[in-house]
This record gives sequence, C-alpha cells and structure tokens, in this order.
Amino acid sequence: MRLDAAELAKKLDVEKVSGLLDIPEHRITGALKRKTIQYVRAKLELFRFDKPISSVEGGTSVFIKPFDIVRGFPKISRTLMLYPALSKHFSPLGKVAVEEKLNGYNVRVALIGDELVALTRGGFICPYTTEKANDLINRQFFLDHPELVLCGEMVGPDSPYVPKSFYGIESLEFFAFDIREKISGKPMPVMKRRALLEEYGIKSVRLFGEFDVDKAHIAITGIIKEFGDTLREGVVIKDLQMILPSVKYTSSLSNCADLRYAFEFYNDFGRDFFFGRVCREAFQSVEWDEDEAQMKKRCQQLGESILLPMVRTIKKKKAGERIAENVQIRVKSLDTVKEFEEYLRLVGVDAVFEEPQKIGDEYLVRIKRINQSTNDKTESILSGQLWS
Amino acid sequence: MRLDAAELAKKLDVEKVSGLLDIPEHRITGALKRKTIQYVRAKLELFRFDKPISSVEGGTSVFIKPFDIVRGFPKISRTLMLYPALSKHFSPLGKVAVEEKLNGYNVRVALIGDELVALTRGGFICPYTTEKANDLINRQFFLDHPELVLCGEMVGPDSPYVPKSFYGIESLEFFAFDIREKISGKPMPVMKRRALLEEYGIKSVRLFGEFDVDKAHIAITGIIKEFGDTLREGVVIKDLQMILPSVKYTSSLSNCADLRYAFEFYNDFGRDFFFGRVCREAFQSVEWDEDEAQMKKRCQQLGESILLPMVRTIKKKKAGERIAENVQIRVKSLDTVKEFEEYLRLVGVDAVFEEPQKIGDEYLVRIKRINQSTNDKTESILSGQLWS
Repeated sequence: MRLDAAELAKKLDVEKVSGLLDIPEHRITGALKRKTIQYVRAKLELFRFDKPISSVEGGTSVFIKPFDIVRGFPKISRTLMLYPALSKHFSPLGKVAVEEKLNGYNVRVALIGDELVALTRGGFICPYTTEKANDLINRQFFLDHPELVLCGEMVGPDSPYVPKSFYGIESLEFFAFDIREKISGKPMPVMKRRALLEEYGIKSVRLFGEFDVDKAHIAITGIIKEFGDTLREGVVIKDLQMILPSVKYTSSLSNCADLRYAFEFYNDFGRDFFFGRVCREAFQSVEWDEDEAQMKKRCQQLGESILLPMVRTIKKKKAGERIAENVQIRVKSLDTVKEFEEYLRLVGVDAVFEEPQKIGDEYLVRIKRINQSTNDKTESILSGQLWS
Repeated sequence: MRLDAAELAKKLDVEKVSGLLDIPEHRITGALKRKTIQYVRAKLELFRFDKPISSVEGGTSVFIKPFDIVRGFPKISRTLMLYPALSKHFSPLGKVAVEEKLNGYNVRVALIGDELVALTRGGFICPYTTEKANDLINRQFFLDHPELVLCGEMVGPDSPYVPKSFYGIESLEFFAFDIREKISGKPMPVMKRRALLEEYGIKSVRLFGEFDVDKAHIAITGIIKEFGDTLREGVVIKDLQMILPSVKYTSSLSNCADLRYAFEFYNDFGRDFFFGRVCREAFQSVEWDEDEAQMKKRCQQLGESILLPMVRTIKKKKAGERIAENVQIRVKSLDTVKEFEEYLRLVGVDAVFEEPQKIGDEYLVRIKRINQSTNDKTESILSGQLWS
C-alpha cells in the first residue's frame, strides 16, 4: 500500500520537523509531493532527504518511532591547487588540522531509541553496515552522548561498496572523522573530538598534524608525495574549531585508481566523474612544476588508467562474460544477508548473491554487482550498433 | 523591435511551411513560441530550426523573401567498430562507397533568389563563408539546378572555425560531399553526384572506392592505417544509392587531435565530447587486436592529448595571458569583415578582430576567439577558489 502526500505529511509531523530544521512547512510538504523527501519503509521507518532542502543537507534522515533526526553529511569541497586556496579559504594567520582521507565509504552511526544504526551518505539504513557498526563501535559512547552522531569511513576488503585491501585491514574497520550534533549538524572541534573518541577506544582517521595555514600547502605536498605508490587517497584539511567548512585534496594515484575503476564500468558512471579527475591531474602537474619526464609519466599513467580497464571490459564482454564487480560481505547473522539483499533492491542495485560460506563464527557472502548499463552498451556496440 | 510569436507566425507563413515540411501547424507555432524556430534578422531574413522538429533536421533554414527552404544537414551516426556494424547497417550483399571525411567545417550552399548563400550547420548565413563560396564555386551549377543544395566541407588555414594547415591548402577550399534537394533533403546517388560536380568543375571529397559491404571493414582499416600520422580525419561510408543513412569512422590520430584541441579550452566544451572520444580509442584498440606495446603507445598518446594542452593553458593563464584561439580570414571586401563581426556577435562568439592587412588583392584579418569559460575557470582555480 502506498501512502499519498497527505498521509505522508501526517506521518512525518511536518510542523515539528519544520521547527527543528528551520525549513518552512510548505517546502516540506512540497518536497514530500515531489518525492525530494522520500518515505522509506524498513525495520525503522524513516524519511530521507534525496537532495538538500533550504540549508539542510541531502541524506538527512528523519525517524518516526521514536522521533529523531540525523542531519546529512555535508559535501566537502575540493581544492585542485593547495596554494593559494588554503590561505583564501581558512583564516590566513590561523592553524589547520590535516587528517587522512580514507578510501572507503562514508557512514553516520547514531543511536535511535535503543537501536544503533548506520546510515549511508544518502540517508538509508544499511543493514550490513549496521551489523558491523554494532560490532566495531563501543556502544557506551552513544549511551553517554545520545544526541551525537559519529561520522566516519568504513574501510576494508569486506565492503560491498568500496572494497579495498591495501590498508592492511582484514575485514572491515571503522575510522571516525567527525562528531556532530544529530539535529543541528554542528561539528565538534578537531582535538576535542579525537580525545573523546580515544576515551571510548574508537579509532580515528590518522592526524598528520596541525599546521600554520600559510605553510600548510608545503606540509601537505610533502604528505601526498610521501604516500608514494601506496594508493592512499589524500587528506582533509580542517579548521581546528570546525567553524569553517573542511577542504579535501587527493593524490594523483588515487585519482588514477578512481579512473581505472570508473572506466571498467564506463557507462555506469556520470561523465562529470571523468572530467573532474582529469582536471585535477592537470592542475597538480602545474602546481608541482613538473618537468618533461614527470609530465610524460603522468600522461602515461592517465592514459593507462582510462584505456586499459575499458579495453579489458570490452574484451570480457566479447568473450561472453558479464560485466560485474565482485564484492563480499562477512556477517554474523544470516538475517543480515537477507536484509542487505532487500536493501540493495530498494536502492536499485542489481546484485547476485552466492551461497553463504561459513568461516569461523561468521559467514562470507560473495556478491556480484551487475553494471547493467556498461553491459548493455558494450554488447550493443560489439553486435554492430552505431554509437549515436 | 522584437516580434512576438503571432507576428512571427504571420511572417513565416506557417501553413505553407507545414505543408512543405509535413509538420503539423501547431508544432510550428509552438516551436516559434519556445524559440526552437528562431527568427534571424539579416540581409536575407530567415527562420532557423534550432533543434529537429518532427522529422525535419535542426539547422533547417526557411527564407522569407523570396520564400525558400534549405533542409538542415542530417547528423551522421558513427561506428566505433567496423565489424559487424557495416554489415548490420547496410545491405550485407550490397556495395558501399567510401569517401574521405575532411576536417573543416560543414556548409550548405544554395541559391536563394539570385543570391548564393552559405549556411552553417546551425542554419545561419555565414557572411565570410558566403563570400568564399561565391568565389570558389561555379555559379552555373545553381543556375542550372536552383532546386539543389550543395553540401561540403570548407577546409584550410583561412578558416575562422576549424583552421587546419595540414591539407596543403593555401587559403580555403570547398570540397563537396553531398547534393540534396533543398526542400525534401533527398540526396543524389554517390556516383551521379560526383559526375555532375565534375561537369561543373566543383571539387569533391576524395573517393577511396566502392567496396562489398561484407569486406568493407578490411578495406577501411587499411585506409585508416595508411593515413599514418598525417592527421587526416577519417571516412564516411555511404550507400551508393544514398537511401540508407551514411556512417562515419575516424582515425585515432584525429581523435587525439580533437582531444588536444578541446582540452586546451577544457571548460568551453561539453563533457560528452571527451567521453565519446575516449570510448572510440578503447573500441578501436580491441578491434585492431593490439598487443601490449601498441596499447601502451595508444595510452601515452591519449594521456598526452588530454593533459599537455590543459597544462599549457593553465601555465598561460598563470603567466597572465588570455586563453584564446588564433584564427584568420582572408577576404576581398572589407564589408565582409564587418558583417562577419556582427555575425559572430549574433551567435555569441566572443572575438577580437585585428586591423585588416592588405595582401595582394585581399585582406587578411587575424581574429582572437576568446574562450571565456576556460579563462574564468582557470583564473578562479589559480586564485584559490575551490573546484566545487
């Protein structure tokens, strides 16, 4: 049974949400009609903001029973060149903290009533991540601070979204990078946050240090260059008080790794994805004042990151294979597998689950995520369709 | 004074156009309101189709005094792989003609009343190309065949749109590749067209030959490979009777040359432009069954085509230069210069004209086309703005 806009408005308590988030009531009812605010029927019913509304972030979740709100995680702007962007963005005489940007997936963990749930960037509850969060994160933190949400990165090979094995993580780990107030989204100052997390034994992302804003670009260039070929992603540069928005900066290798991944599934990605990453390479080359040999190497890497995965995909398809991404999850409860399968269907991901395999007290489940658009496009060109 | 939709409808003679082009009247009046059909006030007044309407091509021009219609040039589909696309698209037991695809700009030349005009792809009269067409093309052709439009490529260094000097052309030349009926757009069979043009001493694009459809992919691969590093663009494969639509196929070098050009002005181009060209490289590499060394070279070339021009642009801007493209025109009449300046303003191209320079009985005018979006974006990032 589908609810109409009026029934949804009643369920949501528009007046209360309007007051708490400072959004005019008519914008909330309008958003319900246009489905910018979507009702998600799940074990915990919620409404999620598909896009920003007024000054409230997309991915914001409003829970019904018990009533609660978790603000979406704000988009972090990127700088293509460190100098003079940092001095311009932060207070030029102040200090910034530089933390590692990990290559995993962004989650927010919060206690809703007495359930600890993990929300995806889009504001859905992910059943798999929720099981993991319950396992990995000290619940006492939330019992002591029920008004806070813990924001962090889930990283490791047992990730259904961004499986990475180069961090030396065995299964999946959570690294916090932010603590915010659930309803206002107000973040905690960097050092206070790190100290509080340490008290509860919750891991934080690595802190590279505090730097004077006017010298930070030198320190950060050094940090990025020291990453070498370890595939580490980059850094997030933060106002110590967390009053000004944070800024991210990524390494060329992580850029190219993104491109390699995206071009393997070339038709399932937005075209802006490619373009932005290419631009980062050009600006970094200029900022680093590269000589001819260095540029030549960067060009080779860029070209290979684009062409080789795409050629592999075409050859695979030509050989009759299906273009898919192999991921895996590791769970304690088989119920989580079922719930996760339903969740992927809900968010429109086409996936094939293999039989769970018992390993110790856990189950490993291999999943093939099907990249339908790349399958179809490649198939059609190989069979003689014209490009357009 | 701007005309409203009702006045425009009266001027256009909607009923007549509806009958001749087989478009329902309400779609024409609707298109006038939405400005999909645009009135262009010029020496010869006309209405141009900004986009396709019903089955009539975008770029179609309807003249008022005297009344006449020149259909837009149809979009030619591209194949990324020759086999099996050609057998699928053309009659598998038939023959195709393979003509050279030149790298210049597409024009249609027609006699409207007693004026020979050159239309751009978009359906505007280009005053510069019109002067050139009057100079280069035997008018007798149109006097004998006033119902025909001559479609071809303007090529050479004195091109304000696509200046190319590698064809060994001194100034600007016209090469025909199609003869069509003005109003119906019906094309003439390939060999009949080539013979007719020869009678009038009008140059045609190069014919590589007629090939059996089921073997054409082998012949065309040979042709493209023989282009070597001459930067020639590619071929158009045509049904001899011109009943089935033509298909184009381009060389990797021309692809990369396009990319080099586009990345020099990276923010002035659509993102699909980049993406499509990258995909062509991958499919060609698979079709040509390249080994590791050949792929490595292709990757290097692709990477360099993308990064090097963009890096040059950023460095130029950093040195305080303005990002612009240097082109030139060569005219007999200074009036043409003035008209061409007005025309560029009309179509929204930002250009700076230098003083005409007398050479023989002509004037050479150097023009800087300003790529405003790339200027602004590069400037903003260099000065410390964040990417997004």
